[in-house]
Amino acid sequence: MTELLQNFIGGRWVAGQGTGTSLFDPITGNELVRVSSAGLDLISGFSFARKEAGQLLRAMTYAQRAKLLEEVGTVLQANRDAYYEIATANSGTVKSDSAVDIDGALYTVATFAKLGKTLGERRHLVDGDSVSLAKDAKFLSQHLQVPTKGLALFINAFNFPAWGLWEKAAPALLSGVPVVVKPATSTAWLTQRMVKDVVDAGVLPVGALSVVCGSSAGLLDALEEFDVLSFTGSADTAATIRRHPAIAQRSVRINIEADSINSALLMPNCAIDSPSFESLVKEVAREMTVKSGQKCTAIRRIFVPQELFDSAGQAISARLSKITVGNPRNETVRMGSLVSRDQLATVKEGLAMLKSDSEVLYNGEAQPLVDVDPAVASCMAPTLLGVRDGDAGGKVHDHEVFGPVATLIPFRNLEHAQQLVRRGGGSLVVSLYGSDETALAATAVDLAECHGRVHVVTPEVSAIHSGHGNVMPQSLHGGPGRAGGGEELGGLRALNFYHRRAAVQGAQGVVDSVRS
Amino acid sequence: MTELLQNFIGGRWVAGQGTGTSLFDPITGNELVRVSSAGLDLISGFSFARKEAGQLLRAMTYAQRAKLLEEVGTVLQANRDAYYEIATANSGTVKSDSAVDIDGALYTVATFAKLGKTLGERRHLVDGDSVSLAKDAKFLSQHLQVPTKGLALFINAFNFPAWGLWEKAAPALLSGVPVVVKPATSTAWLTQRMVKDVVDAGVLPVGALSVVCGSSAGLLDALEEFDVLSFTGSADTAATIRRHPAIAQRSVRINIEADSINSALLMPNCAIDSPSFESLVKEVAREMTVKSGQKCTAIRRIFVPQELFDSAGQAISARLSKITVGNPRNETVRMGSLVSRDQLATVKEGLAMLKSDSEVLYNGEAQPLVDVDPAVASCMAPTLLGVRDGDAGGKVHDHEVFGPVATLIPFRNLEHAQQLVRRGGGSLVVSLYGSDETALAATAVDLAECHGRVHVVTPEVSAIHSGHGNVMPQSLHGGPGRAGGGEELGGLRALNFYHRRAAVQGAQGVVDSVRS
Repeated sequence: MTELLQNFIGGRWVAGQGTGTSLFDPITGNELVRVSSAGLDLISGFSFARKEAGQLLRAMTYAQRAKLLEEVGTVLQANRDAYYEIATANSGTVKSDSAVDIDGALYTVATFAKLGKTLGERRHLVDGDSVSLAKDAKFLSQHLQVPTKGLALFINAFNFPAWGLWEKAAPALLSGVPVVVKPATSTAWLTQRMVKDVVDAGVLPVGALSVVCGSSAGLLDALEEFDVLSFTGSADTAATIRRHPAIAQRSVRINIEADSINSALLMPNCAIDSPSFESLVKEVAREMTVKSGQKCTAIRRIFVPQELFDSAGQAISARLSKITVGNPRNETVRMGSLVSRDQLATVKEGLAMLKSDSEVLYNGEAQPLVDVDPAVASCMAPTLLGVRDGDAGGKVHDHEVFGPVATLIPFRNLEHAQQLVRRGGGSLVVSLYGSDETALAATAVDLAECHGRVHVVTPEVSAIHSGHGNVMPQSLHGGPGRAGGGEELGGLRALNFYHRRAAVQGAQGVVDSVRS
Repeated sequence: MTELLQNFIGGRWVAGQGTGTSLFDPITGNELVRVSSAGLDLISGFSFARKEAGQLLRAMTYAQRAKLLEEVGTVLQANRDAYYEIATANSGTVKSDSAVDIDGALYTVATFAKLGKTLGERRHLVDGDSVSLAKDAKFLSQHLQVPTKGLALFINAFNFPAWGLWEKAAPALLSGVPVVVKPATSTAWLTQRMVKDVVDAGVLPVGALSVVCGSSAGLLDALEEFDVLSFTGSADTAATIRRHPAIAQRSVRINIEADSINSALLMPNCAIDSPSFESLVKEVAREMTVKSGQKCTAIRRIFVPQELFDSAGQAISARLSKITVGNPRNETVRMGSLVSRDQLATVKEGLAMLKSDSEVLYNGEAQPLVDVDPAVASCMAPTLLGVRDGDAGGKVHDHEVFGPVATLIPFRNLEHAQQLVRRGGGSLVVSLYGSDETALAATAVDLAECHGRVHVVTPEVSAIHSGHGNVMPQSLHGGPGRAGGGEELGGLRALNFYHRRAAVQGAQGVVDSVRS
């Protein structure tokens, strides 16, 4: 039997009961390791994290905790090769796709270590200036942000076992809030390994970082009033979580990042030989294929002026046709596999559904896979669909296919394009391609209300922009409506979720003292 | 039959179907008016608010909308006498208690009109500075706050028909978001009348302010992704609301203000003849009796050093014994009635429950009521309870009695006091009484995490502080855990709820343009 990965909870390593659930290599189908959370004492484990680790973390200053993050970064850096090996084996990703997850995590930890230092030797944050509540300003109000005395539970998605942990854990730990992470089972190995390395290195207070692998049963029941819960995953699971008594009755603060049908929009009046056309085509092909399209931020809908529909379709298809798909261990392969056979089946099902009211502009299913057994591997080449009447086609605006699939849609004018983008019901990101900065800025402001991020690509930044789908720790990650309504990252804004805002009202001496 | 109040929805006045529900005078038991929301077309009414009024509001600048609030204030001021009459008749409050609601509303509207002017002639807000995402700062991230394109639905509580509307509507309208208010049925008259006056005066775009009186059936079903919902009321209703598909599935943003078992804390080493002892006693008596204790911010638990338990009990009782209770129309009466016979029964039930593990320090039930028929009126004199062992007594920390009832609890030392305060599981406000500013500030910071507001009374501010229970628009109103986890007011922070934050990433020219 393969190794049963241990959980770290209550300040010690514990094996779950039973034989557990197996994790597989999505290329070979080989079993890799097993996980189980059965029989864990979550109540006392959570209590240990809150009381023991929480107290030690909160006793430190932001600058001291920033130093901890720096040390975490050093530990992760030292074990980077092992993470790439696990990613290849368990996620089936080529090296550059593993980098998005692993190096993305390292960069995010380093960024918060740097940001944390700027907060200095203090233990709570001052929020704005004091304001007078009485004549002669003799009685004042001062807002503070103080770290919550609960823990942070992360229920994470399968596509980012490394970054998904650290983009949440870095701001939580910097805030002085202990973390319990429950990675998605299919790729839990990498998350568990990173936690293990950090725990074994002893850089954090014991219990500041815990990991539970396997079923999430009982996790929400163990939450208390001052805990926070961050969930990344499907809208269906999000709805179930929101109805749980911990949230519905005990007001546990929750952040949700769910489905998102992101858009790319080529502005009107961009010619076929314009740099903006080229930028759009390049970015769409990249977004469809990086991590086999398994990014919550990936472009799912591509909006182009109607006269460019055919040429855009052809240009994107031409790029897709050059992407070799198959075994990530083979050096000729540019795109690896989906995360599992289950996901492959789900994506194919979704693709079939979208196809029922669209046309196929590039058919990945006709493309040969390299160095894999198609009956075993979870590989799938990219497919570009087209919907000529975006107003009619409802499925493309409502159904996210979480794989290398996107749909091209023509628009008549900018207003029409904006209407179509909004059919997504709230998304993580929209990217705009054009050269008229004033028009782009106006469109960005208009679409900001239904997106967490608007990414604008003009010719001068075409070679240096950070990418439609890359989540930079400096920018907000989240989106309203269908996208779950959450807010992550955004630089130090990320700390808000782990702090409680309060107004202190008192005399000048009291206000001066709470500000210091 | 009494008048059936009309609803304003979809840009017109509409009577609900049927005979409706009656509103009563809680002193005389007389029927006053009736309300009904039966048969209203909420879907098209909400759509009208979003599309017609929302578009007009968003086309204005913050400064223009601030001007609207100023005009709203003028309309309300002109009709102030009528509001006092309605409050006396429908809420049974004495003039000074009606003022907390009515003048509190006027002050809040005026404050947001003033704050709104400072935002100037713009239509969205810039959130922080731009940060570089590439070498030489050629690609940047800039966060914005843009008004949501949905509507704001308020489901409000019975205790503040005036202030409860305007403390939410002022920031919503200033943000450019149309409002639909559903007041609690028992005191809906005042809310409806204020909306009617503002609508009739024509100062707002038609549909910017709507009112639905009666049942809340169907209101949540009519909510869409970009709407927001603010609820003030019981924790049980809050849990039901959180489970509704609009919130659980469509991610409608929600703000909840629910139960709160607020505290007052006399710091250790305050002598019986100290000004802090006097301030605490005075404030407790005031909080127990203002609006007959029907304030979500009222003091429910009073913590004093154990050696002062008896003397504090006696001093508070002495003050309570001087409060005349009865018909608010009688000039000798200092405290009117509860809002209804139903509430009277609920409060008496809660009081009986608390009594089962506490002693009665001042028995209001022995006090005669002035100028009312006790079999008809909803009056009840204040009762002070005492629990000598705060660690054992669980009910006082878990059960809010929403009337003129509070419980005195002794503590051994400051740490013990803080533990006991925390037993409330998250509250709106705690007030601290003492003279050592450093110790007070440290205690305020420590307790900030489980309160929305910490109110510190030192001798120098004893005559001018804004009051434990008064919600100042400049300060945050809300609290974690049992208190619902919401955030209202806090000056311009109140606008966050009605805005969506987004990061715009682009070249310097794009960032400059979205900032302008």
